[in-house]
Amino acid sequence: MLINNKPFRTIWPKEDSDKIIKIIDQRFLPHQLVLEELSSLNDFITAIKDMHVRGAGLIGATAGYAMYIAAIEAADKNSFDEHLMMAANQIKATRPTAVNLEWAVNRQLSAIALVNTVNDKIKIAKITAKEIADEDAEFCKNVGLQGVKLIETISKRKNGEVVNILTHCNAGWLAFVDYGTATAPIYEAFKRNIKIHVWVDETRPRNQGASLTAWELLNHGVPHTIIADNTGGHLMQHGMVDMVITGTDRVTRTGDVANKIGTYLKALAAKDNNVPFYVALPSSTIDWSIYDGLKEIPIETRNADEVKYITGMCEGELKQVLVTPEKSNAVNYGFDVTPSRLISGLITERGICEASEEGILNLFPERKL
Amino acid sequence: MLINNKPFRTIWPKEDSDKIIKIIDQRFLPHQLVLEELSSLNDFITAIKDMHVRGAGLIGATAGYAMYIAAIEAADKNSFDEHLMMAANQIKATRPTAVNLEWAVNRQLSAIALVNTVNDKIKIAKITAKEIADEDAEFCKNVGLQGVKLIETISKRKNGEVVNILTHCNAGWLAFVDYGTATAPIYEAFKRNIKIHVWVDETRPRNQGASLTAWELLNHGVPHTIIADNTGGHLMQHGMVDMVITGTDRVTRTGDVANKIGTYLKALAAKDNNVPFYVALPSSTIDWSIYDGLKEIPIETRNADEVKYITGMCEGELKQVLVTPEKSNAVNYGFDVTPSRLISGLITERGICEASEEGILNLFPERKL
Repeated sequence: MLINNKPFRTIWPKEDSDKIIKIIDQRFLPHQLVLEELSSLNDFITAIKDMHVRGAGLIGATAGYAMYIAAIEAADKNSFDEHLMMAANQIKATRPTAVNLEWAVNRQLSAIALVNTVNDKIKIAKITAKEIADEDAEFCKNVGLQGVKLIETISKRKNGEVVNILTHCNAGWLAFVDYGTATAPIYEAFKRNIKIHVWVDETRPRNQGASLTAWELLNHGVPHTIIADNTGGHLMQHGMVDMVITGTDRVTRTGDVANKIGTYLKALAAKDNNVPFYVALPSSTIDWSIYDGLKEIPIETRNADEVKYITGMCEGELKQVLVTPEKSNAVNYGFDVTPSRLISGLITERGICEASEEGILNLFPERKL
Repeated sequence: MLINNKPFRTIWPKEDSDKIIKIIDQRFLPHQLVLEELSSLNDFITAIKDMHVRGAGLIGATAGYAMYIAAIEAADKNSFDEHLMMAANQIKATRPTAVNLEWAVNRQLSAIALVNTVNDKIKIAKITAKEIADEDAEFCKNVGLQGVKLIETISKRKNGEVVNILTHCNAGWLAFVDYGTATAPIYEAFKRNIKIHVWVDETRPRNQGASLTAWELLNHGVPHTIIADNTGGHLMQHGMVDMVITGTDRVTRTGDVANKIGTYLKALAAKDNNVPFYVALPSSTIDWSIYDGLKEIPIETRNADEVKYITGMCEGELKQVLVTPEKSNAVNYGFDVTPSRLISGLITERGICEASEEGILNLFPERKL
């Protein structure tokens, strides 16, 4: 997507170098665009662990490139295999709950095991890293091509008037390699000159909407307005939202959706006001082994200081301010589960389906038991 | 209520002076307890306009005392009546939408008009100011005595286990003279040694929950936990909320409730999870002339910078940080309307009633048309 009219991805190899990978250090967004060069395994470990990069798709792609750089480093060691395996374990340990991380590392290990010489191993690791990144972008692009149909339909029904879309958290291109999931249909609609406007939930406590989604949309030129998370219900009551699109961290086989805390509240408001509520995802997000989101998806409890302290720009520097009494307790649940009954449909790379086992299996018949 | 084990109100006459009124300058909460002495009309104007005091009940009480001080000042002028009327208009203009402000000033004008000498006018203004403050506290106390019955019932049902109450925004003693409305049943339950715990919605964008409600509860010793506004739905899905109590800014004759933005979302979640949702109010909050909250209650749009900038404590000073891209738009609706169908009941000073015209008129038969 665009930054200052120049197309960007979230991760890419440096033009003139075989051994340097570039990323956007997202810790400085939305205030500063900081690009970072990663050229050692340690650089990658730090970038993932300290959240210079975040988001399922981007973490996977970063892990893919990390394994390529690890293979280069392993070439200088006594035992290539041993060193590579140590690196793989180190990478997997950076964010223990990120499924894409393990998946990308294992994919690299399998690919690298297929060839014999160290040179070939490095070559195939490079190719595989690029494949992982490209596939992520391709999946997201297809989610956009599917989802844009919904926006087009609403736009036609409104005779070309502005379509107002509400989104929660950041399921944007910054969380993937390009396009994003919830944002992919939005970017595609924008490309097709459909008049759209996005309500951006600020998404407390980490403010990913206010800081990341708003920044993406601003830089790509998509009209948007940031709102407190409390606001969506009021907007829907007054006909100011035509549809909701969110991303997801995990979907059950039956269509229950785990996503950033607060998603469930927006789904309730959408239902109460007949506003369509869609969830956009690459099908890799579906956990085929579970049936009941509320009972089976564990919800991460994060550091309470994320509620008590807020970081922002003050006098040219990033500062952290305390917004509660120092001695009050706080608690910070990262996600909630939206039951499938509140979801109008799932937008996947293969098409749009009902949020139900039957609906999902229609699109993914190979998953029938 | 208690601060450091010492009982406080939000406004009181200084012990050793007839002409000085003390308040808590709430702008510094929850970080510093700053007491302020108001001794001139100008002091009062500034205190109300710049929100050293806020909240319906407290604004009314402050306006009452402001008229008393204005009467003292008017005694030195050529025309007492003219000066007092000018003062009355100045006070009314400080917060144009605050109903209690106008009501308190008019009550003072009527009282002062009943007597003839300047001395008597000052005396009656002092008495009336105290009456307004005491009545506010009395109303809130009665709301507490009524509402505590609900908490007692839940406590019994749970065999004395902790009753978890969720509240949104600050309808606490800081918004009134004492006790508060949503908090009054909580303080009464605490006094009766019922085990309770309060989930405090931080209440973006102005964080009244995180800064004021949490501070109140902390100082009074009531167990509580601050949460992002996004969290309540998740808690209710998992049985972690036994009841919701909020305050309100305006209630229709039919029981629709305007309250801080986001209240509607919590009411939806409560309904979806069979959690009782109560609204606590002095009956002065009921607007007997309107029937449809969504259509008839205008919703104030406040400054968007309240969404984009957050104030908190940093290195010993209050600082404001920017949390969005500088150039992104934001919008800031102050309130939303919760339809009566989502409300389990209204807790008033006379008792608890259904949120319906019939229910309300059963308690207030004098309002039948």
